Amino acid sequence: MQKLRHSFALLFAFVLNFSINAQGNLSQNDQFKKDSIFFKNIYEEALLRGHSYARLGELCKGVGARLSGSNAAEKGVLWAIKMLNTYRFDSVYTQPVMVPRWERGDQEKVQFQSALISNAISKKQLNQLQQKIANFSFSNSPNALYECENLIHIKENSQKWYSLSACALGGSIGSKVEAKVICIQTKNQLDSLGKIGVLKNKIVLLNRPMDETLLNTFNAYGGCVNQRVNGAVWCAPYGAVAVLVRSVTNKCDNHPHTGVTHYEDSIKKIPIAAVSTADANLIQYLSVYDSTFKINIQLNCQIKEDRLSANVIAESKGTVFPNKIIAFGGHFDSWDQGEGAHDDGAGCMHAFEALRILKTLGYQPRHTIRSVFWMNEENGLKGGLAYAALTQTKGEVHVAALESDRGGFTPRGFGIDTSILPKVKCYQKLLTDYGVGTLENGGGGADIGPLRKTNPNISLISFIPDSQRYFDVHHAETDVFESVNKRELELGAAAIAAMIYILDQQLD
Amino acid sequence: MQKLRHSFALLFAFVLNFSINAQGNLSQNDQFKKDSIFFKNIYEEALLRGHSYARLGELCKGVGARLSGSNAAEKGVLWAIKMLNTYRFDSVYTQPVMVPRWERGDQEKVQFQSALISNAISKKQLNQLQQKIANFSFSNSPNALYECENLIHIKENSQKWYSLSACALGGSIGSKVEAKVICIQTKNQLDSLGKIGVLKNKIVLLNRPMDETLLNTFNAYGGCVNQRVNGAVWCAPYGAVAVLVRSVTNKCDNHPHTGVTHYEDSIKKIPIAAVSTADANLIQYLSVYDSTFKINIQLNCQIKEDRLSANVIAESKGTVFPNKIIAFGGHFDSWDQGEGAHDDGAGCMHAFEALRILKTLGYQPRHTIRSVFWMNEENGLKGGLAYAALTQTKGEVHVAALESDRGGFTPRGFGIDTSILPKVKCYQKLLTDYGVGTLENGGGGADIGPLRKTNPNISLISFIPDSQRYFDVHHAETDVFESVNKRELELGAAAIAAMIYILDQQLD
Repeated sequence: MQKLRHSFALLFAFVLNFSINAQGNLSQNDQFKKDSIFFKNIYEEALLRGHSYARLGELCKGVGARLSGSNAAEKGVLWAIKMLNTYRFDSVYTQPVMVPRWERGDQEKVQFQSALISNAISKKQLNQLQQKIANFSFSNSPNALYECENLIHIKENSQKWYSLSACALGGSIGSKVEAKVICIQTKNQLDSLGKIGVLKNKIVLLNRPMDETLLNTFNAYGGCVNQRVNGAVWCAPYGAVAVLVRSVTNKCDNHPHTGVTHYEDSIKKIPIAAVSTADANLIQYLSVYDSTFKINIQLNCQIKEDRLSANVIAESKGTVFPNKIIAFGGHFDSWDQGEGAHDDGAGCMHAFEALRILKTLGYQPRHTIRSVFWMNEENGLKGGLAYAALTQTKGEVHVAALESDRGGFTPRGFGIDTSILPKVKCYQKLLTDYGVGTLENGGGGADIGPLRKTNPNISLISFIPDSQRYFDVHHAETDVFESVNKRELELGAAAIAAMIYILDQQLD
Repeated sequence: MQKLRHSFALLFAFVLNFSINAQGNLSQNDQFKKDSIFFKNIYEEALLRGHSYARLGELCKGVGARLSGSNAAEKGVLWAIKMLNTYRFDSVYTQPVMVPRWERGDQEKVQFQSALISNAISKKQLNQLQQKIANFSFSNSPNALYECENLIHIKENSQKWYSLSACALGGSIGSKVEAKVICIQTKNQLDSLGKIGVLKNKIVLLNRPMDETLLNTFNAYGGCVNQRVNGAVWCAPYGAVAVLVRSVTNKCDNHPHTGVTHYEDSIKKIPIAAVSTADANLIQYLSVYDSTFKINIQLNCQIKEDRLSANVIAESKGTVFPNKIIAFGGHFDSWDQGEGAHDDGAGCMHAFEALRILKTLGYQPRHTIRSVFWMNEENGLKGGLAYAALTQTKGEVHVAALESDRGGFTPRGFGIDTSILPKVKCYQKLLTDYGVGTLENGGGGADIGPLRKTNPNISLISFIPDSQRYFDVHHAETDVFESVNKRELELGAAAIAAMIYILDQQLD
């Protein structure tokens, strides 16, 4: 084997056996040339003969939304197994995962009645007003009251109910509630008003917007997602009867964004739903200027028995360290809105495509490399937890794990565990040439996080694409195949294939 | 004034007069803090209270496409003057520009007849086939023959004409032509076949696709746009009767992309049109497998008399060097397809918004800073040429000019003339923090290029956003307001405001 390596080193232009690594006998210059050629081959395969986009199209259009525990999710699992089997990887298999099963039920209704919206305004006109608020808004801020004034004029109290763009949050109870509304921006404001009884028998709108000044939209998401996760638990003790939450998105539009919420056993469960940002602005306006303003919420959600589902895995066996594993993937489940295209069909297709590219190029990995579609990241993380537990049961050693769960946008770089950052930085020039030179200190992800416990020496890596458009579609009906750009998706798959190559070469 | 500067230096947190520059009395550390605060203020103004997106919406939806010499372009000029006047800049004015006037005329028709597409296939079915080719293609390549075979079956010669997605190129003559088709990929192939008479009386499809492996799509554009520009001149001498050109786009879809083409006086003028990439693939397929395949082209284009139009300028007077100018802008004209949103409404709104932000922040520029909407970049460059000539007539000295003509996508950095690159690199850390740390050697642009002749000491700067999606919509009906992302556009305006600040501070 060693002898074979020497002769290949002389013929780097046609290197087929890429198990020659940086620890081999190549000069630094020859190694760089070899790596350059391999990167070039990866990108050509992804961009000229890529499979990620077509497979994502089949997943989104053929299966669609894949909420954990739903029939569609199980249909998706069968599709994934069948699809992966056509590529003849060394093995394709599943891991059993019991997942929770929350169902939205019949389409929910969130409606309002207001003396400010007179009978003279038809539903069509209201819809135009909402569109106007959405399209020509200056800012995603509840303080921007836009052009409502021009369209709204005070008349006698209307008995008409108008629909809001809203949807139950994942995990919410079903319920029917009608009440007046109070709008809240901060937790402090909530507590002050709650303590003096102002929230009692009210529907609370938690209306803190994303901080648009944060360049990385994930930081802005982190700054206000707690009102979605904790809304019911925060408001119920103050006597609120239901919670509406401003959709966590950078866009001012009419699409509600769902997401997980939670209850605590010791606290009364009240219904909780997301409203679109444009309608959150409308509610804010009407609740201030109309003392008769009220909202009616009808949610039909149910929690059913847990159901058996699966993680889906495809792998190529390692030639040097077959028992050491490098795992990479995304989560296969999605919310029930949209098609789970960016979140996280893209991440799954990135991982499958990275494995396919390396196989197609004839690359023989030193470690076992494994593409994983984790189940149930959105509302339970059961797939990630089961995966981590199984590594322990089976005695599998993971040297690294990479997660792609930030959408299929133009890749920028990676977040990487400090311990291996210098090893990856050897490739800084090449990565920069391919637009992925941003190497941040520290990596991780929801699904790979649990591996730290069962594999203490593991290095975690996050894939980092451009973040600007992610929350426009996140958890909403707009997260569909059409929102994914073919080249952007393909570049992500190529970047991940390149990173897996680096990890495979650099780690022991 | 100097005294005033000292006291402000101590109170950098509330600096209002930003004419204190790097040559002033601040320590390097204090200067960095001051710059950091100013950058932060720029980005907050752009992202929280930005005007670029709403103004672009008005331009796209209220005016729409703005082909040079059209009534719409003149309506646009009036809109721009009125809009800019509402901001009370130091001055808003126009420069006269005579522009050419090419008109598409009534909707053109490009149709085909083929024995392979039988009468049994309805228009609806053909449309489905075209959609299928567009949506589920593996690659933007004429060699990928997709799933045609499943839908096409040979029958008796059909007399039915089917429409292709095509549009005349800008500058083409009007004409009616019917002929058999030959598909060509390279100039060499064209010349070899031309010389032996194969192109005689044929319609030639110039079908070279963009090279998808080039990461920067502008490089791929550069590699095949010559067949669009020179197609008629190349093919006419070989006896071709018309030219079709594969749309220069990374997408495989059904939208034709227009763009400028040219004739030479000594060479016979033949009609030339763009076909969508999906239909270029279809033509390639049918021309190979069906000897009866023919195409009928009806273009109704006309060239009319030149018309008076205008560059539109808004400026803030310099406090230190009022006679030295830093110009920045985009082109106001567009093609007649779509709404000229990314190309180049975005560039114009970037420039106006950068000027507005600096004014709103109370920044008093050292140089006169000038936002320019150049007219007629697409098919004549008359605005850029007139602008450069006028600087000479008026004795205006330009120290720098920046052009934004690559769309309103997430900004990545700038191309910068070598001579001033070190001065800009002083701000590398801050620029990197804001995602625009890519500083390439060499700047320029179509509209600012002519300034080099009349202002030999000028430094030219190109604004560089992410390039992946630009050619998806470039010169096509899809270049509409909805294709522009609010945050991406705003980040571009902020980046340009920051660069104008740097230039104003660093140059003399």
